[in-house]
Amino acid sequence: MTRVVVSAFSVSLDGFAAGPAQGPDHPLGLGGLDLHQWFFSQKNFPPMRGATDAAHQVDAEHAAKALDGSGAFIMGRHMFGPQRGPWTDDGWKGWWGPNPPWHAPTFILTHHPRDPIRLEGGTTFHFVTGGIHDALDQARNAAGRRNVQIAGGVATIRQYLLADLIDDLQLSFSPILLGQGEPLLPGIDLKARGFTLTDRAIGAHALHVTLRRRPPQESVAA
Amino acid sequence: MTRVVVSAFSVSLDGFAAGPAQGPDHPLGLGGLDLHQWFFSQKNFPPMRGATDAAHQVDAEHAAKALDGSGAFIMGRHMFGPQRGPWTDDGWKGWWGPNPPWHAPTFILTHHPRDPIRLEGGTTFHFVTGGIHDALDQARNAAGRRNVQIAGGVATIRQYLLADLIDDLQLSFSPILLGQGEPLLPGIDLKARGFTLTDRAIGAHALHVTLRRRPPQESVAA
Repeated sequence: MTRVVVSAFSVSLDGFAAGPAQGPDHPLGLGGLDLHQWFFSQKNFPPMRGATDAAHQVDAEHAAKALDGSGAFIMGRHMFGPQRGPWTDDGWKGWWGPNPPWHAPTFILTHHPRDPIRLEGGTTFHFVTGGIHDALDQARNAAGRRNVQIAGGVATIRQYLLADLIDDLQLSFSPILLGQGEPLLPGIDLKARGFTLTDRAIGAHALHVTLRRRPPQESVAA
Repeated sequence: MTRVVVSAFSVSLDGFAAGPAQGPDHPLGLGGLDLHQWFFSQKNFPPMRGATDAAHQVDAEHAAKALDGSGAFIMGRHMFGPQRGPWTDDGWKGWWGPNPPWHAPTFILTHHPRDPIRLEGGTTFHFVTGGIHDALDQARNAAGRRNVQIAGGVATIRQYLLADLIDDLQLSFSPILLGQGEPLLPGIDLKARGFTLTDRAIGAHALHVTLRRRPPQESVAA
């Protein structure tokens, strides 16, 4: 059965999932790249005190499996690119070059229509103007029996959480402070929305947790 | 030199340092006791995946050292007891019995005057009606060359943080969700206030971080 998942999504200890002042020079906001040190540079970045080889392996496994099992992706327009307003013929095809890591149909939420962009490796960007439910319907059709992954950014994940549409939420808490930026969870009571922690793993550079939402019938019975 | 410190203060992954509905039956709020599993029951509570003996030791050391080096404590009235309004002759001497763990002068912030209470083991509760600066002055005098520890609760620590009076902030992030409760950090940009992370340690039940605030002259130069 298709599940709607968020995977390997990094959050700072002060609750931010992107830094402030996002833009062309800082796609993840100021300091935002540090959120992902556990993912990118497990060898160069100083690990936490007490990190073992096994903890490095936990980070590496979470990174390696981040996209596994997902047959379609959804992302907000700001994750796709820095443009705002109607699309222009600027040749932009996303941040990721000719062969993006998604390797699957990827649906971009936007208010402005645009033809799909087919790239190498199986990624096709589809631009959806009908809102988050429409994008999810399209992504489910595209994913077949595989999962639909909500790739980000923060505002998009918050919309899907507030609509109770996410089944599995995997967060990686990086031991950094951002101070400012886009907070992920304020006003979203994950516990009341039926999420429980099903895994808590110690990485060398992050604390990884998996949350699973109870199906509605169990929530009613609880 | 006396430093003003917060030590072993537990926070949930969703940013709460106490659960909702605090009161006589739930001094830490609903679910709040789980915040402190790393402190209390390192053997009984399931550790995080990847926990080693060294990680258990990290938790134990943080617990053992939580009160070290502090010659006086400050706490909010709600941490001392569930009463509200003027003090009555109800015999309440705090949550901790005849020999509280503080073993030092402990200053309670309150709007209502009350005579000090001297207990076994060196703890004397002083009731301060002059506000957070007055309490800190009195605690500094009492601490001598040792540290002043802001023991809690959340509202008290927030007041001292917002007044830039805390030098060292040690937080223990427990891998739990509270959903609701008292959030510690919203609206407080620790980075802008000069805090940097000086230690990040992996425990079996918590991720422990130490933050140190730069002295003002360095902040100005930065």
